[in-house]
Amino acid sequence: MRKFVAHRAKKLITNATASLLNPHHQSSSSSNQYYTSARLARFFTSLPSDTSMASDKSTPPLTVDSLNPKVLKCEYAVRGEIVSLAQTLQQDLQANPGSHPFEEILYCNIGNPQSLGQQPITFFREVLALCDHPTILDKSETQGLFSADSIERAWQILDQIPGRATGAYSHSQGIKGLRDTIAAGIEARDGFPADPNDIFLTDGASPAVHMMMQLLIRSEQDGIFCPIPQYPLYSASIALHGGTLVPYYLDEATGWGLEVSELKKQLETARQKGITVRALVVINPGNPTGQVLAEENQRDIVEFCKKEGLVLLADEVYQENIYVPEKQFHSFKKVARSMGYGDKDIPLVSFQSVSKGYYGECGKRGGYMEVTGFSPDVREQIYKVASVNLCSNISGQILASLVMSPPKVGDESYDSYFAERNGILTSLARRAKTLEDALNSLEGVTCNKAEGAMYLFPQVKLPNKAIKEAEKAKKAPDAYYAIRLLNATGIVVVPGSGFGQVPGTWHFRCTILPQEEKIPAIVTRLTDFHKKFMDEFRD
Amino acid sequence: MRKFVAHRAKKLITNATASLLNPHHQSSSSSNQYYTSARLARFFTSLPSDTSMASDKSTPPLTVDSLNPKVLKCEYAVRGEIVSLAQTLQQDLQANPGSHPFEEILYCNIGNPQSLGQQPITFFREVLALCDHPTILDKSETQGLFSADSIERAWQILDQIPGRATGAYSHSQGIKGLRDTIAAGIEARDGFPADPNDIFLTDGASPAVHMMMQLLIRSEQDGIFCPIPQYPLYSASIALHGGTLVPYYLDEATGWGLEVSELKKQLETARQKGITVRALVVINPGNPTGQVLAEENQRDIVEFCKKEGLVLLADEVYQENIYVPEKQFHSFKKVARSMGYGDKDIPLVSFQSVSKGYYGECGKRGGYMEVTGFSPDVREQIYKVASVNLCSNISGQILASLVMSPPKVGDESYDSYFAERNGILTSLARRAKTLEDALNSLEGVTCNKAEGAMYLFPQVKLPNKAIKEAEKAKKAPDAYYAIRLLNATGIVVVPGSGFGQVPGTWHFRCTILPQEEKIPAIVTRLTDFHKKFMDEFRD
Repeated sequence: MRKFVAHRAKKLITNATASLLNPHHQSSSSSNQYYTSARLARFFTSLPSDTSMASDKSTPPLTVDSLNPKVLKCEYAVRGEIVSLAQTLQQDLQANPGSHPFEEILYCNIGNPQSLGQQPITFFREVLALCDHPTILDKSETQGLFSADSIERAWQILDQIPGRATGAYSHSQGIKGLRDTIAAGIEARDGFPADPNDIFLTDGASPAVHMMMQLLIRSEQDGIFCPIPQYPLYSASIALHGGTLVPYYLDEATGWGLEVSELKKQLETARQKGITVRALVVINPGNPTGQVLAEENQRDIVEFCKKEGLVLLADEVYQENIYVPEKQFHSFKKVARSMGYGDKDIPLVSFQSVSKGYYGECGKRGGYMEVTGFSPDVREQIYKVASVNLCSNISGQILASLVMSPPKVGDESYDSYFAERNGILTSLARRAKTLEDALNSLEGVTCNKAEGAMYLFPQVKLPNKAIKEAEKAKKAPDAYYAIRLLNATGIVVVPGSGFGQVPGTWHFRCTILPQEEKIPAIVTRLTDFHKKFMDEFRD
Repeated sequence: MRKFVAHRAKKLITNATASLLNPHHQSSSSSNQYYTSARLARFFTSLPSDTSMASDKSTPPLTVDSLNPKVLKCEYAVRGEIVSLAQTLQQDLQANPGSHPFEEILYCNIGNPQSLGQQPITFFREVLALCDHPTILDKSETQGLFSADSIERAWQILDQIPGRATGAYSHSQGIKGLRDTIAAGIEARDGFPADPNDIFLTDGASPAVHMMMQLLIRSEQDGIFCPIPQYPLYSASIALHGGTLVPYYLDEATGWGLEVSELKKQLETARQKGITVRALVVINPGNPTGQVLAEENQRDIVEFCKKEGLVLLADEVYQENIYVPEKQFHSFKKVARSMGYGDKDIPLVSFQSVSKGYYGECGKRGGYMEVTGFSPDVREQIYKVASVNLCSNISGQILASLVMSPPKVGDESYDSYFAERNGILTSLARRAKTLEDALNSLEGVTCNKAEGAMYLFPQVKLPNKAIKEAEKAKKAPDAYYAIRLLNATGIVVVPGSGFGQVPGTWHFRCTILPQEEKIPAIVTRLTDFHKKFMDEFRD
């Protein structure tokens, strides 16, 4: 029997060990053992074959140097050093009001609208509350507290959930009825069919991105194409999964344009270095850059991915955040379908989230990915990885279905929903414009328009003296600038080095999210700070 | 300048590429470039140094063989083949009632209580609904719909959330005020202090387990000690992160006892094979085994981990599920502290979830890990990994605080809360006993008592004829038994091979969760099936 096992599974700890060590081991037929060892194979991932290796008699104590180096390599600037400093300053201010030259910290570092006072959409929250506590649905008091269509929608959703059990694990891809709703929403948006079986509901977009990276990256010789500047979820996720980020640079001079010629050159360079580039990440609308791609540009990207055999990973979480009349959001799936590429022609993943848009429900951790163009056996692997975490949270799932099917004209909530939505989006557009203008009026600062998303990414031409001062402080020059800004004004921005930028240029990312009444003060503080900074360091 | 970069970062794509390709590249001082390249280093994880490698001119099409082999290796039986078959049968039954010899599928494969009709705890859902839609908190109708203490609790919780924004991303570890509540709950449970800064709130326990595996596993030479049988989250997570599962066998003959002598032997064996065993997983109460460890046994385990330098990963998600008066739950932290080991003496992680206990809120994806005994720089890395996913969902966070601080004597909801809780737990105890007795009455079946958790894990002595039949069908014998059971009765169980078992023994895991009125029918169907199966195959 042992010979047989050794033959079948050379690299496993042999059953011999198990049988010697376990008094309950039973003798049985070899076919029996075959299945046992085949099953056990799962539990013993391939051990080093050289078992003569010297035995290390003690596990060294856990230190940072003995952690997974991929974890050590990973960085995430959006919640990095500057944010820690901001939290310390905030505690200072609480303990000793007046201890700093500002009264509050203004978090412009992260796309977290409700943390800065944005109110949730009433209809969405009504439905969520009713689904959380369905026993009140048929009480008379409920009619006075909730809109009629929120009650109706809650019933509809509960009917889509097996046993109406909002506290049960769902299907690994999410509740089928909610996926039907989302697919219908995508279809209405794009004018092309969407299949509920292509939808994987996730706890926000981040786990979906990790899942795809986990699937695609085998080693550091696998590359993922990312825009520079990029949202650091991508660099962090690629680092955690041990792959290589292959950069393509967005062109700041043409409003953060994405040139296919640049893609071609970078792909060639990566391939010459032995990198297999597996996928291309596009963030549209852009984060941190705020550009909205033109449809023609999208077509070029689809064509490029098709030609080069790349999976297209389309981060489309800002699809509802468009602030300029001349631009419109087109999903990459719509673009691919309109070019005549069908479901089997191009592997394409679209990420969507409830955290962005006009809803900004970051804390609900809802989102989905729409996965098309993969073979059934690859799809099965995605399903398996999703299954290991069982399912995403049901409130987030419900919310994802709601943002893809908000109230319609004629629904009781429609007018208030529309007013709330419109109020948020038009205000965001005004805030973007005011901040953009203010930034462009600063000495040495140029800032592209935020056509969409929630950010401005101005370039700051830092004086050499400031760069030297940063060097002394062992900081990147843009981090030095951001720290000085924070200490002087309480405004928290993220240095461009956290996103990547053309060598020798310096940027920061600033959200457009502070409430409108605070914008003038931000402009004043920022302007004053920048003048003083330049006066201090001007070459 | 380029020389300088090459010197600083040999393994990076050089800036030369970037500057050649980007027309906006600016010349600047070398100190400036230093920071640029240091920052860029993050984006280009170490490329193979041999750049003379032949360039592969096209990315091969995405096939299952070109996916990350770690993903391919991972298996997750709880949602595997048998569950897919069950879903197909369910669709059959819906389309053609009467098409199978049963009327419904009885899912005994997964600890998902509310999917089988268990009702949520009213107080918890009241608070969740109010936190989802706080604008109704001060409406008069709300008094008629919600208990006074749920309204009060919702106010308390909202006051703990910055800006009362339940739709905002929280601190990466979770909302501080909720962590305070959880720490107080742990302190009350254990009689030893707990620090809110040691709590990391997570979307259920699974992401917390993944996070620790990601941190600890560097390569397949890093081993994680796991009980066999184990909950397949562990084998799946170790496979996904590329480590080696080092087994220790629970002793079925002594009620799934955990012997330190077994740990020692297996550790020695693993070390001889060159494996660095980094951590020990203990599941208490046990899954799939249902045993509750004796305190003395826990002390031995703590001592063993201390002596051998292992991180103790304590899966304590079933801490509220104890069904026998002679056993009690003791957290490993309490046991370690009561032995005199302080915060710095032993690295220990305790996992807790809102999915289990009497609450069974699987769909809410709430949970936490309490992390003690790690150095500050290791803690910082855990924090960083948590930050990459921003935060866990806020409803789950709120629920985690509620299960650690349920209503108290004197609160308006206390009586109904206690009745609901007690009803669920005493019913689960009765169901466990009935199923255990029924299983033990079957020919060739022995089943240990479910002292805790939600499962029975009976051993079935399968006749050789059945094993041969399974071999013909290319199934593990226990999988063959489970498929036959499902096809004959609609009862879904998970084969023991999904959890690991002593070679030559066969088991299945069956939850105790079907509603009490269904238990007699399950017993009858299972008994009938087993008799027929044995009649068909008896040697």
